[in-house]
Amino acid sequence: MYRTNTCGELRLSDAGRRVTLAGWVQRIRKMGGMTFLDLRDRYGITQVVFENDNNSDLTEAANHMGREFVVQISGTVTERTAKNPNMPTGDIEIIADKLTVLNPSLVPPFTIEDDTDGGDDLRMRFRYLDLRRNAVRRNLELRHRMTMEVRRYLDSKGFLEIETPMLVGSTPEGARDFVVPSRMNPGQFYALPQSPQTLKQLLMVSGMDRYFQIVKCFRDEDLRADRQPEFTQIDCEMSFVEQDDVINLFEGMAKHLFKEIRGVELTEPFPRMTWADAMKYYGSDKPDTRFGMRFVELMEPLKGHGFSVFDNAAYIGGIVAEGAASYTRKQLDALTDFVKRPQIGAKGMVYARVNEDGTVKSSVDKFYDQDTLRAMADKMQARPGDLILILSGDDAMRTRKQLCELRLEMGRQLGLRDKNKFSCLWVVDFPMFEWSEEEGRLMAMHHPFTHPKDEDIPMLDTNPAEVRADAYDMVINGVEVGGGSIRIHDSKLQAKMFEILGFTPEKAQEQFGFLMNAFKYGAPPHGGLAYGLDRWVSLFAGLDSIRDCIAFPKNNSGRDVMLDAPAPLDPKQLDELKLAVELPEE
Amino acid sequence: MYRTNTCGELRLSDAGRRVTLAGWVQRIRKMGGMTFLDLRDRYGITQVVFENDNNSDLTEAANHMGREFVVQISGTVTERTAKNPNMPTGDIEIIADKLTVLNPSLVPPFTIEDDTDGGDDLRMRFRYLDLRRNAVRRNLELRHRMTMEVRRYLDSKGFLEIETPMLVGSTPEGARDFVVPSRMNPGQFYALPQSPQTLKQLLMVSGMDRYFQIVKCFRDEDLRADRQPEFTQIDCEMSFVEQDDVINLFEGMAKHLFKEIRGVELTEPFPRMTWADAMKYYGSDKPDTRFGMRFVELMEPLKGHGFSVFDNAAYIGGIVAEGAASYTRKQLDALTDFVKRPQIGAKGMVYARVNEDGTVKSSVDKFYDQDTLRAMADKMQARPGDLILILSGDDAMRTRKQLCELRLEMGRQLGLRDKNKFSCLWVVDFPMFEWSEEEGRLMAMHHPFTHPKDEDIPMLDTNPAEVRADAYDMVINGVEVGGGSIRIHDSKLQAKMFEILGFTPEKAQEQFGFLMNAFKYGAPPHGGLAYGLDRWVSLFAGLDSIRDCIAFPKNNSGRDVMLDAPAPLDPKQLDELKLAVELPEE
Repeated sequence: MYRTNTCGELRLSDAGRRVTLAGWVQRIRKMGGMTFLDLRDRYGITQVVFENDNNSDLTEAANHMGREFVVQISGTVTERTAKNPNMPTGDIEIIADKLTVLNPSLVPPFTIEDDTDGGDDLRMRFRYLDLRRNAVRRNLELRHRMTMEVRRYLDSKGFLEIETPMLVGSTPEGARDFVVPSRMNPGQFYALPQSPQTLKQLLMVSGMDRYFQIVKCFRDEDLRADRQPEFTQIDCEMSFVEQDDVINLFEGMAKHLFKEIRGVELTEPFPRMTWADAMKYYGSDKPDTRFGMRFVELMEPLKGHGFSVFDNAAYIGGIVAEGAASYTRKQLDALTDFVKRPQIGAKGMVYARVNEDGTVKSSVDKFYDQDTLRAMADKMQARPGDLILILSGDDAMRTRKQLCELRLEMGRQLGLRDKNKFSCLWVVDFPMFEWSEEEGRLMAMHHPFTHPKDEDIPMLDTNPAEVRADAYDMVINGVEVGGGSIRIHDSKLQAKMFEILGFTPEKAQEQFGFLMNAFKYGAPPHGGLAYGLDRWVSLFAGLDSIRDCIAFPKNNSGRDVMLDAPAPLDPKQLDELKLAVELPEE
Repeated sequence: MYRTNTCGELRLSDAGRRVTLAGWVQRIRKMGGMTFLDLRDRYGITQVVFENDNNSDLTEAANHMGREFVVQISGTVTERTAKNPNMPTGDIEIIADKLTVLNPSLVPPFTIEDDTDGGDDLRMRFRYLDLRRNAVRRNLELRHRMTMEVRRYLDSKGFLEIETPMLVGSTPEGARDFVVPSRMNPGQFYALPQSPQTLKQLLMVSGMDRYFQIVKCFRDEDLRADRQPEFTQIDCEMSFVEQDDVINLFEGMAKHLFKEIRGVELTEPFPRMTWADAMKYYGSDKPDTRFGMRFVELMEPLKGHGFSVFDNAAYIGGIVAEGAASYTRKQLDALTDFVKRPQIGAKGMVYARVNEDGTVKSSVDKFYDQDTLRAMADKMQARPGDLILILSGDDAMRTRKQLCELRLEMGRQLGLRDKNKFSCLWVVDFPMFEWSEEEGRLMAMHHPFTHPKDEDIPMLDTNPAEVRADAYDMVINGVEVGGGSIRIHDSKLQAKMFEILGFTPEKAQEQFGFLMNAFKYGAPPHGGLAYGLDRWVSLFAGLDSIRDCIAFPKNNSGRDVMLDAPAPLDPKQLDELKLAVELPEE
């Protein structure tokens, strides 16, 4: 037995007990004839005192301990004279009588403190040291608590967690698969699942009724800051349900998590917003509704006054930044630069201030008289002291997305995106399809198994681009934490869907025959949803990136810099797999 | 809303209620003017009655329903006249007034009954129909309950579930890895983890203190009946522990599972047996201790009496089959054939019956006098009516393994291997190394991170083959359900271990440098264990194979016959991965 207690649990009521602790040396300070050692483990920090007068050899030994040494210390719990109310163990200290070094440590390459001096790369290379920091460890503790609560909740609702295979077949529809060569079946490959979508649908066909799984999924995509090649989904599916049944159940789960994990009691139903409204008022299918600043379409007051930029625009829209009329020219120029960045791509920005006397002063005053500007301000419900920001463009959807970025930036600048405030909503009635310029055809906006809205089914033949789906996303603070849909359970409708997506019947059968055949043997109506665990933990932890809620994340090149993976294979392994690497000449 | 209730919940107290159920048609029978329809879902079966006199159209429609049609039925809960005490819903039936076909079904290729007429191949191809059978579904429900209990237990003991990556580096030590080509790093490969062994050790270095994960692991092995290329481990690791700490905690978990899942209260500590004793008395490192029949070494009484088979043997050992003296010559010949099968490989079998008068009648009477045979029987504590079975050979270990198979077969024949009886034990003190004929070197018996017993460390230099490890397996009914060890936490000892295993320092650094380096920054003493979830569920479910506790298992060629995976890739995918398949000429 290495310890009687952890470094986080001793209290004043333990005074007088002889205890043994084990942990890491956080810091050491000599003060007069005493040496103070802060001993750290996952559970906390306990102060240990070595008294030179009583035990000079031991104190001398303690003085030689380095940061991050692993030591075992025995001693007596004693009330502190100078208590530290900021530490749970701050009322006591251990008067040491024994010290054993369990393992020494080199000087760590960065400090193991909440505010470390280690840069990102170094911290990732020594991730096992980075994880010793409270800030990072707490994220993993939060993640554990969240998955425990998810499981408790879904178990209480009759869901079964069922593991689906990781070695499945490759389905070129969707993102790129990671593939796994099969040695026993040379020349053939498994794929790692992008999601257990078809398998969970088969579980519904098999009558499992309520399924969930917290499961790794894989996508071989070019990575952005908030993407990982492997990520974790809370994957759920239910039988004999309509959209409202799914939404109600998982809204209940979200509320449960908010209450248990964040201590936030959400009593109201989450608002529901159609995709069309989300695009119209926020330019995004995942609007951040912690603040208003909804788009106001301004074609009517502003078009046709001789300002060619607006006169030629397919869309003119603006937002009202409350109380921001005091923005300086420099700040406004910076905003213009912001929307003109290539990632956003606006050509320019028009602004207008509402003065205290109600007059409006704009950057395009030479084209507009005061009446027109006032009409605009009225339409936007702008009040004295407000700032109006306007974008326009010849592609309405693109302009709305630019205005969305501007709105988010203004929300940030005005402090309206408080990480401790949560605004949840459902976005519903997504379009079934979206046009892919790259592929030159309609693609499924969610996936090819999504059920069209019953009333829109006739349009599948006449105007598929207008068909809406029984699909829904849960959005919190502008983050899509989950999404799902009612699925097709009819093999004929599924076949039609593949046809619209440009599959020949043979190709559809080859790739999804197992599912369409299954539908012929009594498939129940079903639907479900998947939450992105990484995103949700990040949201609850107040992180900007999902990376710090993942124990061993990969970098933007898909590399694990700690393990140095991926790496070239032993040629013997390639031979066994009947594979050759064919790199292009440099 | 598709249903007001499930098919498993209505009781007599619901009589008079109007309800709507949805589910699958299990069977239909016409009796006089009534049609009885058994409606099934995951939760049970409810009898529905259609009365021709009251509603002939509806009854006519019901008569046209086929097996496995998905239907929605509304009606009134009514007390049955002929109750069925074998069904939880057997007191009531639904008098139907509405019937909607939600989805028809083709005639299923096998019957959806506990005893199905479907063969293994057919059931696997239509696994989604096979899973509708109670027998299979119950295994998945059991699996869910077990993982819930494991998580509850470990959470209550302060363990954190931490996800480790699935895309890691390949480590040729151990079994074969499945590999994953990286498109973003052409010519380089990830590997799928055989276990999170090194990553959980890094989590200990990071101070996580108590880690667990229920996690998929992968081994590209040639498959046997009870192996799958992907399998699930309950993977655990603890810091600041000695062997007893780990054993006590996980014995507690096993007892918790026995109690919660099987209703079996195990109050005694599990016995511990050294590996040496397990081999000596049972010829196996995972003895089935539900029954005795321990080996008795018989060199002393039987060698040197002119029976050349025994005289030349390096090992002679026997077992006593209680009360089996009545075995016929035919039964004994069958046993001889059993041990001579190539999989077992014994040259022959000697037997002896202990008669009611205490005399011993053996198959080698011409070489042994009655005194010798009686001395043998006495040494074996055989009593009148018992049967003695003896094997011998020139390789003691091999002969013991043959005798082990014979013992298990006799246990089976004598009904001593009751699936509802559980005998648990720990096998401890495993050898550190075993000699590999194939590799011509010592190999780690568990893995290269296992800590040698402190008292044996000096032998690492002088006689490594004799070194024992701080390793332990939990064995239940002859099944190794889990195993683990105390790990090395000292980078120098770890380096020495790699040296003994034939690694050059460069090779060790290349493959395990990340771990040995981590050990230099304050690694705590640590150890852990991993349970095989599939095996444990099978054991609790009384299954002979792990396959039926896995939703979508693979066959012995590693194929998923339902998904038809693996399969050849689209050439475009290979191009993107810079890979070429090089199949040998036929």
